[in-house]
Amino acid sequence: MSAVNVAQKFALFQEHWSPKVIAELNGQAVKLAKVSGEFVWHDHAEEDELFLLFQGTLFIDFRDRETVTLEAGELYVVPRGVSHRPRTRPGEEAWIMLLEPLSTAHTGAVRHELTQDRLERI
Amino acid sequence: MSAVNVAQKFALFQEHWSPKVIAELNGQAVKLAKVSGEFVWHDHAEEDELFLLFQGTLFIDFRDRETVTLEAGELYVVPRGVSHRPRTRPGEEAWIMLLEPLSTAHTGAVRHELTQDRLERI
Repeated sequence: MSAVNVAQKFALFQEHWSPKVIAELNGQAVKLAKVSGEFVWHDHAEEDELFLLFQGTLFIDFRDRETVTLEAGELYVVPRGVSHRPRTRPGEEAWIMLLEPLSTAHTGAVRHELTQDRLERI
Repeated sequence: MSAVNVAQKFALFQEHWSPKVIAELNGQAVKLAKVSGEFVWHDHAEEDELFLLFQGTLFIDFRDRETVTLEAGELYVVPRGVSHRPRTRPGEEAWIMLLEPLSTAHTGAVRHELTQDRLERI
């Protein structure tokens, strides 16, 4: 493995809600995603999920607590079992780094048209 | 937990080679460190270690492979069991985010004057 330039990796894809794996460690995957609009409500029963913003503004809605707002250079960990919905402002885009177990399905137990069963490695 | 602003966390400390924990997930710790000069050669027998550069230039020397150079926005995973030595150019400083298991000692099995037994949370 050589050094991974995060900006160069972001330049390799344009599609939304389709995380790409850029590194692995200790059973966790480092993923990049470009997102726009609303994702599906979901949770991950056994896995905490880290969001680190590289560009744009990301909102993470919760059922029972205030929405978290993330700007570039900010991170947040969604605890396991907590139902959440990532979203951007309509028509805007956010670039995020995710860290979660390799085994994590990005829509949790929810099957949705956005669900990706196999994540591409870039 | 609320959103964590990485730059604001870096502003909270000045000391070198003294990682601070800013988040935890899945048994892993997200740590920030400011480093300058040479660290001690060490390895982590059971743990991969991710370096993500926020500022400056970091070199990671290896016993048996080429030195990896990291600039801001670049990351690298040092595999478990691989002896390595982080360093900067003399007199320069680098700001890094580390991701590794909560249990990881930053100098591995090596005891050194730089070894910190308890990491501060900020």
